[in-house]
Amino acid sequence: MPPETVLEQVPPEAAVAAARARSEQVLEAWLERSPGVSAALDEALRYSVLGSGKRLRPVLVYLAGQALGAQPVALDPAAAALEMIHAYSLVHDDLPAMDDDDLRRGRPTVHRAFDEPLAILAGDALQTLAFEVLASREHPRLAALVTTLAQAAGRDGMAAGQAIDLAAVGTPLDLAALQAMHQHKTGALIRAGVRLGALVAVAESDPRVAALDRYAAAIGLAFQIHDDVLDVTGDTQTLGKTSGADAHRDKPTYPALLGLERAQARARELLDEALAALAPLGDAGAPLAWLARFMIDRDH
Amino acid sequence: MPPETVLEQVPPEAAVAAARARSEQVLEAWLERSPGVSAALDEALRYSVLGSGKRLRPVLVYLAGQALGAQPVALDPAAAALEMIHAYSLVHDDLPAMDDDDLRRGRPTVHRAFDEPLAILAGDALQTLAFEVLASREHPRLAALVTTLAQAAGRDGMAAGQAIDLAAVGTPLDLAALQAMHQHKTGALIRAGVRLGALVAVAESDPRVAALDRYAAAIGLAFQIHDDVLDVTGDTQTLGKTSGADAHRDKPTYPALLGLERAQARARELLDEALAALAPLGDAGAPLAWLARFMIDRDH
Repeated sequence: MPPETVLEQVPPEAAVAAARARSEQVLEAWLERSPGVSAALDEALRYSVLGSGKRLRPVLVYLAGQALGAQPVALDPAAAALEMIHAYSLVHDDLPAMDDDDLRRGRPTVHRAFDEPLAILAGDALQTLAFEVLASREHPRLAALVTTLAQAAGRDGMAAGQAIDLAAVGTPLDLAALQAMHQHKTGALIRAGVRLGALVAVAESDPRVAALDRYAAAIGLAFQIHDDVLDVTGDTQTLGKTSGADAHRDKPTYPALLGLERAQARARELLDEALAALAPLGDAGAPLAWLARFMIDRDH
Repeated sequence: MPPETVLEQVPPEAAVAAARARSEQVLEAWLERSPGVSAALDEALRYSVLGSGKRLRPVLVYLAGQALGAQPVALDPAAAALEMIHAYSLVHDDLPAMDDDDLRRGRPTVHRAFDEPLAILAGDALQTLAFEVLASREHPRLAALVTTLAQAAGRDGMAAGQAIDLAAVGTPLDLAALQAMHQHKTGALIRAGVRLGALVAVAESDPRVAALDRYAAAIGLAFQIHDDVLDVTGDTQTLGKTSGADAHRDKPTYPALLGLERAQARARELLDEALAALAPLGDAGAPLAWLARFMIDRDH
């Protein structure tokens, strides 16, 4: 008999830590290389991706895929590709014409560390690299994997969310509009992480894929509400960014629309929904359950 | 017996015109749609792609693929995807932080017609859509198709060429460096067009793929030299842009480095190389031969 998979041998927290470490290694392997055509572009790409980030999205790819029986090596391309899409979006969102941010996670943003043209180019090349990485390993469902990633990132996903966000500056959003914005801007990639992992492992028709979709939709929204709550209740030192910054910038938030207590209650309700959705996975869902609790309980 | 393919029934010029018309229709089908998530983003995407452009790259996909026996419908995704990558690169190259152009082909550039944030986003979403389109049809060599497109567009292709170009502003480039810049910045997508068409039709090991690679490398370079020559010899009205603009902006050109006559001779030499490379294709290569002559003889 072969040994049990790693997933069932280790505590959930260790499975999450292993997925995070693996994400980091795979990203490094794609970005650390002997000089390419443009050393400046290569350096901006590395800076955009390595050395920071919680790797939440690739961790979701590994945990969802492993929960349905996929081996980590088969999940590497989807995990790295998704994180590259996320990283490119941060580089472009920080640009002077967009959010005009000088700092991200305590480091100068890419257009500050390099310059604006190189930041635009690095974001562009990082998105391209994501698809190169995703297609670097043959897979019988490669078309579905590429489609899933592209639809989550593009005009009906993350990019649409950013367009809604830009259009909303200075305009009050109601709860439905705020939720639609977040479901596209940040929710789409979180859902894509879980779905990419699932599709590496099994066909879309497997009922556990729909269960994982429900899990992903719930944690995506809960995560955003919790983030807004922390912006109100957290202190600047714990957050690593200015507390109350969103309200100050006139960005709509859940606590502003729902009140703080109802926002907190809604996040807990969504966490319960996410945990319930994992039932069909049995013990294999334990790391995903641990991660959901960690995401919503975190204080930074 | 089924009828001969369209390619062998019509004169080369008509085959090129048919490929161009088909490119336009396929792009319209992807971009004209009932309202998506962000109407503003959808409109910027349509403006970025439709209503202008020679469609050279998708035409190359169709002609190369049909020369090796592929049906047009099988070539649609690669053709449209490649043109979307080209269009996204123009939108971003025109941005204030890059070339800061107000006009492209007689129309306001995207950041002028809309605004800068939407131009960045439209370019981003257009690149994403390219990969969604490419994966919209199952193909046994889909991994190779995605890899070909991504490598042509990314850190070792077009994006690298743009990085070299940005780094070279105000610095004299020698002939080798100028050639390397063009081979990446514009040559990569032209080579990708021919190769995508070929790979839709046959496996990479087919010797005609290597022949088409030689054709593409030669026309890519010849096209750029000819473009530089026209910038010197053409008048502003015929060109649709200011004659002598490149020299005025201190951009290195082939006539400046080689002299006008040697540059013209080199373009003709490359055209001969391209035509010779088509020999293994027999009559099926006639539209590609016609296109190469058209590209190098054009006066605008």
